[in-house]
Amino acid sequence: RINSDRLWDSLMELAKIGATEKGGVKRLTLTDLDKQGRDLVTSWARDAGLSITIDQIGNVFMRRDGEDNTLPPIMTGSHIDTQPTGGKFDGNYGVLAGIEVVRTLNDRGIRTKAPIEVAFWTNEEGSRFVPVMMGSGVFCGAFTLEHAYAAKDTEGKTVGEELERIGYKGDQVPGQHPIGAYFETHIEQGPVLEDADKVIGVVPAVMGLSWYDCTVSGMEAHAGPTPMHLRKDAMQVAARIIPEVVAIANRYPPYGRGTVGMMQVFPNSRNVIPGQVKFSIDLRNVNDELLNKMHEEILAFVDKTSADTGLPIKIERVSYYPPCPFHPDCVGAVRKATEKLGYSTMDVVSGAGHDAIYAARVAPAGMIFVPCKDGISHNEIEDAKKEHLEAGCNVLLHAMLERAGV
Amino acid sequence: RINSDRLWDSLMELAKIGATEKGGVKRLTLTDLDKQGRDLVTSWARDAGLSITIDQIGNVFMRRDGEDNTLPPIMTGSHIDTQPTGGKFDGNYGVLAGIEVVRTLNDRGIRTKAPIEVAFWTNEEGSRFVPVMMGSGVFCGAFTLEHAYAAKDTEGKTVGEELERIGYKGDQVPGQHPIGAYFETHIEQGPVLEDADKVIGVVPAVMGLSWYDCTVSGMEAHAGPTPMHLRKDAMQVAARIIPEVVAIANRYPPYGRGTVGMMQVFPNSRNVIPGQVKFSIDLRNVNDELLNKMHEEILAFVDKTSADTGLPIKIERVSYYPPCPFHPDCVGAVRKATEKLGYSTMDVVSGAGHDAIYAARVAPAGMIFVPCKDGISHNEIEDAKKEHLEAGCNVLLHAMLERAGV
Ligand SMILES: NC(=O)NCCC(=O)O
Ligand SMILES: NC(=O)NCCC(=O)O
Repeated sequence: RINSDRLWDSLMELAKIGATEKGGVKRLTLTDLDKQGRDLVTSWARDAGLSITIDQIGNVFMRRDGEDNTLPPIMTGSHIDTQPTGGKFDGNYGVLAGIEVVRTLNDRGIRTKAPIEVAFWTNEEGSRFVPVMMGSGVFCGAFTLEHAYAAKDTEGKTVGEELERIGYKGDQVPGQHPIGAYFETHIEQGPVLEDADKVIGVVPAVMGLSWYDCTVSGMEAHAGPTPMHLRKDAMQVAARIIPEVVAIANRYPPYGRGTVGMMQVFPNSRNVIPGQVKFSIDLRNVNDELLNKMHEEILAFVDKTSADTGLPIKIERVSYYPPCPFHPDCVGAVRKATEKLGYSTMDVVSGAGHDAIYAARVAPAGMIFVPCKDGISHNEIEDAKKEHLEAGCNVLLHAMLERAGV
Repeated sequence: RINSDRLWDSLMELAKIGATEKGGVKRLTLTDLDKQGRDLVTSWARDAGLSITIDQIGNVFMRRDGEDNTLPPIMTGSHIDTQPTGGKFDGNYGVLAGIEVVRTLNDRGIRTKAPIEVAFWTNEEGSRFVPVMMGSGVFCGAFTLEHAYAAKDTEGKTVGEELERIGYKGDQVPGQHPIGAYFETHIEQGPVLEDADKVIGVVPAVMGLSWYDCTVSGMEAHAGPTPMHLRKDAMQVAARIIPEVVAIANRYPPYGRGTVGMMQVFPNSRNVIPGQVKFSIDLRNVNDELLNKMHEEILAFVDKTSADTGLPIKIERVSYYPPCPFHPDCVGAVRKATEKLGYSTMDVVSGAGHDAIYAARVAPAGMIFVPCKDGISHNEIEDAKKEHLEAGCNVLLHAMLERAGV
């Protein structure tokens, strides 16, 4: 069993770097604060006897040798960058749980057959530079190193420059690092475990997602003198589509999700009928066939609404990730460890993207979820219970041991 | 009959002050450009032999004596300030039509019994300083001079300072200026005349309006991991209310109006379920009893929606103007003049507020509408036909002559 206090203390120590007044953390990727965080984590790794490799996109691999170092390492990891209004646990927990696993193995003098590695991936959050999950994405070949290097923040600084500046542009070619199996512990970022009063979420898969921009074009006109029947009110047409996004999600339970999170109204004046309304649509499902049906339904509904109202509506898919089922061996290892340790458990499909979905493209992968307070993340009030973090880390330890062999 | 070319030339000349690239006019109230506009119009008035009085809120009265100067003047007027993206006609037409009436009387050597006055009111648009229709509002006692003086623009400059600076803070106490009858010519700012192919709109009344701010409070959460049944999605609840605003307007035809023109979403991110949605509601009707029913219906619907969804919804009335019926004598004079001149005509209730509604609180008042292209105003592409502006000005001439006596 891992040392719960030590894990908690490390989490709180790392959370000091970029700590916000409201108790959160703001440590954007590739900033000076990110460098401080990286330096702290790698210093802990060195203290624990790990050797460190850095690849060209700044992914960091911290290695504990096994008995047979020709075997690919059993890896765990996550990210230590945060959202602008981030918390102490999102990502950081997955990295420090890995460090705690190593410390525990050291305490007990346990030697694994395969090597053990702890990784942190560059720019998972995507809030300073897009695309999100950049380090793991380059690693698995989802996009090129050049594409990632060229990404700019709002001030025009590039990923390539910033990696160099903070001293984390390594030598290793991304992806040329073997992985025997990959595990990631993470706070759930949703309310399911808390709602069901369970401690460990076994994650069979991550939902696929489809993102759209939808623009309704009407005609700006004065709210007073324009009779109702002569209006081309873009807001009213948008309001027909918004409930359908939820209706579509509800037609594909239990994993259908539909959200309109963003809206811009032009000219956005109280006595002007809106001439244009632009909004986002986020559709998710764990089954790609169902996600595709949802995709077709929203397109058809938008077409029909345009025909019914006579207003042009543009809908454009701006992102698509297929669902990512995790590997039976890894999911099985997590389930077995959970049962062995006697934690209350349920399967929780991940609704959010994680580095693990890119890792899963190059190695067997799996995830372990623990509850977070009110399901809240990407928020300074993000919180998690010490005993839940301990439980997730114990499950990680046993799942990794099972895959690595003792 | 008035001189159409002279009226048009004056409109185009005034429109040069603050002319925008897209053919509109940006001449915000109490700016240097407003001063230039005021100086030009008063110089034309002096050339036409008019004497000028300015009151303490900067309303300007340009007077042509009558035979009996103890009679209160028959007045016409409007405003020369514009929206930031304003056009050449909104307001300006009403003032220059008055100047053209005087020039025509001078050409013909016509002496009226009562004096004739042309007025322009300070800050009708309300886009630099609130409240709107400020000059006429102070004049009729709707709010105090001190209240108006204290109004600040976004840079912190006050109406009092700016009036002084441009030299248009006069001596006369607002309201201590008699009015025998008030007429205002204006572009319709709506599509009704154009749609019906009529030249002159006789305006029996101006709609009342009720403005609301409505705020739905939900719970921010991640769009992926949060199951549909555990959401408190403020956007979806707002989307229930938005169509009801139109439904309510449609239940009180033909003058019910309902518009949601403005919306702000928090945090406005595509993968976050909105935690708060704030939007405006604009309800109008020409009948106060019906407007009041509309008011009660929106409050009841919001209550019901809050109860049905369990989400708190705040609705707050932020403005209310009762409907303003115009005086039968003035409406009659406009109708008679239109018939005499043989213009095609219909009654058009004004959906927008005008200085005339405040003038109507202290004197018999009426309005004359002419078509504007596609019903568009408050837009640089605002346009009107020379022959329609001529017709409206001829109607104004004859209506004023009827009230002033010859
Ligand atoms: N974990 C996470 O918030 N990923 C961002 C992409 C998503 O919305 O799923
Ligand atoms: N004429 C005009 O645009 N007035 C502003 C107030 C309103 O919305 O009616």
